[in-house]
Amino acid sequence: MGTAILTDLLTEILIPVAAVVGIGFALIQWGLVSRVKLSPERQGTPADSNNKNDYSDYLIEEEEGLNDHNVVVKCAEIQSAISEGATSFLFTEYQYVGIFMLAFAILVFLFLGSVEGFSTKSQPCTYSKDKYCKPALANAIFSTVSFLLGAITSLVSGFLGMKIATYANARTTLEARKGVGKAFITAFRSGAVMGFLLAANGLLVLYIAINLFKLYYGDDWEGLFEAITGYGLGGSSMALFGRVGGGIYTKAADVGADLVGKVERNIPEDDPRNPAVIADNVGDNVGDIAGMGSDLFGSYAESSCAALVVASISSFGINHDLTGMCYPLLISSVGIIVCLITTLFATDFFEIKAVKEIEPALKKQLIISTFLMTVGIAIISWIALPSTFTIFNFGVQKQVTNWQLFFCVAIGLWAGLVIGFVTEYFTSNAYSPVQDVADSCRTGAATNVIFGLALGYKSVIIPIFAIAVGIFVSFSLAAMYGIAVAALGMLSTIATGLSIDAYGPISDNAGGIAEMAGMSHRIRERTDALDAAGNTTAAIGKGFAIGSAALVSLALFGAFVSRAAISTVDVLTPKVFIGLIVGAMLPYWFSAMTMKSVGSAALKMVEEVRRQFNTTPGLMDGSVRPDYANCVKISTDASIREMIPPGALVMLTPLIVGTFFGVETLSGVLAGALVSGVQIAISASNTGGAWDNAKKYIEAGASEHARTLGPKGSEPHKAAVIGDTIGDPLKDTSGPSLNILIKLMAVESLVFAPFFAAHGGILFKIF
Amino acid sequence: MGTAILTDLLTEILIPVAAVVGIGFALIQWGLVSRVKLSPERQGTPADSNNKNDYSDYLIEEEEGLNDHNVVVKCAEIQSAISEGATSFLFTEYQYVGIFMLAFAILVFLFLGSVEGFSTKSQPCTYSKDKYCKPALANAIFSTVSFLLGAITSLVSGFLGMKIATYANARTTLEARKGVGKAFITAFRSGAVMGFLLAANGLLVLYIAINLFKLYYGDDWEGLFEAITGYGLGGSSMALFGRVGGGIYTKAADVGADLVGKVERNIPEDDPRNPAVIADNVGDNVGDIAGMGSDLFGSYAESSCAALVVASISSFGINHDLTGMCYPLLISSVGIIVCLITTLFATDFFEIKAVKEIEPALKKQLIISTFLMTVGIAIISWIALPSTFTIFNFGVQKQVTNWQLFFCVAIGLWAGLVIGFVTEYFTSNAYSPVQDVADSCRTGAATNVIFGLALGYKSVIIPIFAIAVGIFVSFSLAAMYGIAVAALGMLSTIATGLSIDAYGPISDNAGGIAEMAGMSHRIRERTDALDAAGNTTAAIGKGFAIGSAALVSLALFGAFVSRAAISTVDVLTPKVFIGLIVGAMLPYWFSAMTMKSVGSAALKMVEEVRRQFNTTPGLMDGSVRPDYANCVKISTDASIREMIPPGALVMLTPLIVGTFFGVETLSGVLAGALVSGVQIAISASNTGGAWDNAKKYIEAGASEHARTLGPKGSEPHKAAVIGDTIGDPLKDTSGPSLNILIKLMAVESLVFAPFFAAHGGILFKIF
Repeated sequence: MGTAILTDLLTEILIPVAAVVGIGFALIQWGLVSRVKLSPERQGTPADSNNKNDYSDYLIEEEEGLNDHNVVVKCAEIQSAISEGATSFLFTEYQYVGIFMLAFAILVFLFLGSVEGFSTKSQPCTYSKDKYCKPALANAIFSTVSFLLGAITSLVSGFLGMKIATYANARTTLEARKGVGKAFITAFRSGAVMGFLLAANGLLVLYIAINLFKLYYGDDWEGLFEAITGYGLGGSSMALFGRVGGGIYTKAADVGADLVGKVERNIPEDDPRNPAVIADNVGDNVGDIAGMGSDLFGSYAESSCAALVVASISSFGINHDLTGMCYPLLISSVGIIVCLITTLFATDFFEIKAVKEIEPALKKQLIISTFLMTVGIAIISWIALPSTFTIFNFGVQKQVTNWQLFFCVAIGLWAGLVIGFVTEYFTSNAYSPVQDVADSCRTGAATNVIFGLALGYKSVIIPIFAIAVGIFVSFSLAAMYGIAVAALGMLSTIATGLSIDAYGPISDNAGGIAEMAGMSHRIRERTDALDAAGNTTAAIGKGFAIGSAALVSLALFGAFVSRAAISTVDVLTPKVFIGLIVGAMLPYWFSAMTMKSVGSAALKMVEEVRRQFNTTPGLMDGSVRPDYANCVKISTDASIREMIPPGALVMLTPLIVGTFFGVETLSGVLAGALVSGVQIAISASNTGGAWDNAKKYIEAGASEHARTLGPKGSEPHKAAVIGDTIGDPLKDTSGPSLNILIKLMAVESLVFAPFFAAHGGILFKIF
Repeated sequence: MGTAILTDLLTEILIPVAAVVGIGFALIQWGLVSRVKLSPERQGTPADSNNKNDYSDYLIEEEEGLNDHNVVVKCAEIQSAISEGATSFLFTEYQYVGIFMLAFAILVFLFLGSVEGFSTKSQPCTYSKDKYCKPALANAIFSTVSFLLGAITSLVSGFLGMKIATYANARTTLEARKGVGKAFITAFRSGAVMGFLLAANGLLVLYIAINLFKLYYGDDWEGLFEAITGYGLGGSSMALFGRVGGGIYTKAADVGADLVGKVERNIPEDDPRNPAVIADNVGDNVGDIAGMGSDLFGSYAESSCAALVVASISSFGINHDLTGMCYPLLISSVGIIVCLITTLFATDFFEIKAVKEIEPALKKQLIISTFLMTVGIAIISWIALPSTFTIFNFGVQKQVTNWQLFFCVAIGLWAGLVIGFVTEYFTSNAYSPVQDVADSCRTGAATNVIFGLALGYKSVIIPIFAIAVGIFVSFSLAAMYGIAVAALGMLSTIATGLSIDAYGPISDNAGGIAEMAGMSHRIRERTDALDAAGNTTAAIGKGFAIGSAALVSLALFGAFVSRAAISTVDVLTPKVFIGLIVGAMLPYWFSAMTMKSVGSAALKMVEEVRRQFNTTPGLMDGSVRPDYANCVKISTDASIREMIPPGALVMLTPLIVGTFFGVETLSGVLAGALVSGVQIAISASNTGGAWDNAKKYIEAGASEHARTLGPKGSEPHKAAVIGDTIGDPLKDTSGPSLNILIKLMAVESLVFAPFFAAHGGILFKIF
């Protein structure tokens, strides 16, 4: 066996320190962003004229004859409109979700409490029958608490992300006047604030919760870490509503704004005359920022919980080896430090001077963080793990070495990079797939859609092989624990991933603000360049999210199977097979709901925008301000109303299947939803990303080929706009929500496993 | 146990008699269709004027001032052009496929022969080790023979179907002059010729093959029926190329013709000025007729083989109970008789008098045949089966009663009807789903596509539940044999199903001929009405094909698992899980290939059509005939070239996975492809059908709502045409081919199971 080099005390210090460093770094970045002033007073009043020198930068590339004072005031106004809209939507959303969460928390308590009839007596442990564990009622209480804790952390993560993004968007616009490099750094730093806050917060809350729960649980680590899985469930439940609600919001506004503005009225994107333009920009913040933040936080929480619960019944847990037990948290701690160093490469070590340097700089972030992290994992595996230990593998203990576990984490990390690069290849307009799609616009929207769908389907192949290899290797080396740490490996660079991800919508908003504030085209071109790179990185981020979701749900599935005491999930039994085929159907059902929701909400938006254009004289010539608030209200109402059915489908399916059909069928459902959902999620987000960039490729006209298809307003461009609009709900609503579907059903099954094992399968018991 | 009422001798008589009756009935129908004369001489020459009375019908609704002689000549000309195009394509296709089939036959022989090193010694039987069975070499030889037999039967089925369809299309056009009822009967009778020929032929060849093989095998029924599974493999391999090649052909021509003709040049569908119009009509015959015929024949052959191979190792085979053994063939025999009676309801007992009666008449066919067949199954289960018997269930024998088996067949049959009705609900423009899609065209093509995709996803839900219930009940009652006979139950009314299916493309062609021959609009309206009903029934037919394919592949999968001597397929082992996730990816890979193929071929077609319009003066005013042959050549070349990669993917995957990764991973691949493929197949074909009918709904303008969206050429109509074009490859190429993907991989695994079990999994053996 041998003991680890890292002592328990050092572990107890290292984890919170890493979290605090992450939070501190985020605050420093925020401070740097806030140096960009949004108040125009100092420049506007003569008293400040002697300060002019501080702002000399501003004038280097500033447009001639532009009224600086007015522009800054306008930007500040628009920013506060967007921020208010987003805040008010999130508060409305949180009210509804809050009620749901409370109700579900009660359900968690009742289901888990009823396992032993709410008895307060200690009971034999599940895996070591000779020992006594805390009563099921304690498990019910602590699971409920950690569920609420996860939900609140997720909520805070999403909300903070949105706040930072709406704080940074106008600042990015203003910095774009000084050059593309300055704008990039502002947007990227703001993304980093979100990335680091989220990663560090998630780690810190989990660490504190474990230590507090330990006060009660003492040596009963099995019970302790089972209760902790509620944290993952809470995080993911919140994420589901965030993703779905935010996704419907943003796409209803986006599609609605485009259909009337771009297609019918022929006005540019983000034109202030379009009544839906504020709603569209709000949508980016509540969907792509708050929704995605909650989503990735959920993945992180779940993979940590899956790893911890398996570890608790392995030699780490049985021998009370705290350092070994905390290995998943140590990986995340190292991840924060690695990402911190990686961020400096983008913001301090190098400088972006031209548009074409943006995408490589973002790509370098991924590569650098992966390389550094590989070293980090090697070190932590060496110092934190005993040279050999055992891992619980469906009833037997499997011998594993520390280097084998290193390979598990590393293969997850590198599989993520492969998925990232494949996604980039299929969605960036620098490569042939997107160019072929753009070319197919020559013959109209129909061929564009056919080629785009085919591209999405094709883009699934290599990621699935990467995931399959990752699963095979990590499963073979360290059973379900291997898969859980592989998922953690993929998510270990989450701070960098999120920085890149959040950077996209911030740039998108910055462009919108430039347009609305009536700034010159040169500013818009710069923010567009930032945004185009952001589009590809957003697709890469979604690739990571999906890949890690696949691994996480498999790990959770494994933990569920262990906890429900099933020894095999045999496809050749009818109970399992019907679960498998119905499970594979669920992503379709879910996608049908979310896409139809976006479609209906968009139709309402279209009607409202048309109504305003038709009934408000002076709207088209810009003399009358449109009624933005009405469009914001339509998006808000639609998304709140429409997020409930898909949310209910995901949350209730495991409960219904587990209660009425039992754990075997539920296992089938989980496996089916996983293997089917991951394909639709990847293809939907890549198809959408490719259409978006095919349109941008034609608009930018950067190559000979692109120019033959353009310019804006040409027939091929119109066809490309149609594809882009179709892709919106695919890539930003139904696709990314599917990650949550597969993860959430798995973690929910895991949390409710004791209940299903004790009382589930009512239907089969009756017949 | 008890013995069956039906003696072996009667069984031996009943099956061939039913087959011969079916063939006879088909010939009678052909005779009736051929009464419609296509040669104009008798009318044209004065010598025949006294015969005019025979043709008095013709004049009842005939258009005034139309030159009858010319019209008939023109129709005959167009018909022979279509027929020649189709024949020449099929011959080219068969040449390539023939070479492939020979090569694959050699592979079958080599792989199976090598199991025991080409030894000619008898060997212990797989399931009763105390008995001796024929050598593996004999199995190799007979499997190869039955493989070729299946391929040839499939080829003949498809070819005959095409011949009949191209024989009937112009006759339907001419009959449409007398009224919609006469046209309906002609088209329906022609469909019946194909339906009955195919069902009866498939049964007869299988019956003869079994009896001939028995001369060698004698009492070794296990070996005999294992060798017979080659018949299913041959049938499905042929079907794969037929579906994919034909599907690419028809949709390349269709999409190409529409994109230039309808969208750019604003000329009607099937206008003779469109150079791609003949290729389009040829496509209907080689894709929807020949391809579909081969496909359903494949399903039929496979489900029979799956049932027979399981029966051979159950008490039927062990006790050499011939009647019980032939139960699957008896079901098909009864099916022929039942369908014969059902057909009379459409052609003789009732008469269609108005357009609105067509769809109900076709629906009634499904309902009547299902009711009659339920009675038929009950009778045959009562007289052909002993009251109790045992069925092989993964190593153990399970006790089953004859009534339980009746339930298995009946639930398959009724699940088929449920799937049919759900498909109708989602694809017929009489119901709200299609009307909603049509309504979404108001806001353009993008919302149309979003709503259409959502509709397809949603339409998966109930069919999957129907399949799941069918699987659960039949699996629980009679293990894998139950599933196989449930699949046979769903396919037992195949003759009626095919009649309805084939009727659609025939009507479609008839409309095209009317347009090309310059007949009046009233004729076209009648054929359009036939065609619209045919669209929905085509979707229903596809629903059946997919549903039965799901059951068939599961049955084959079960037989494979038995034959490969695997006892469990545990999702929790990494070997199986990676198979599952990669298997679930295959349908996407395959769809990406086929859709891209259609897209590229259509682009080529568009260029050629545009070239002809631009460079041929007088083409638009109709004074110069376009070069049809060039378009036919483009479709032919494209489909032959493009069918190879997807074909290779399907045919090689089981070989590669089985050889290198072994039977466990292959099991995972089969299960994954099945549960994922069935969803995509259903959603793709329903989405496509709905778009097509949404367009027709707007064009027909039969309701107040429809008229607000129309007329032809309005903006909503243009959006609907885009949806229709996107749906073409989904519903006619990639969607229906997926059935074959899942069936073919399963039957191929079954045939090669002895090889994989003996020598497979090389990679895992090395590492």
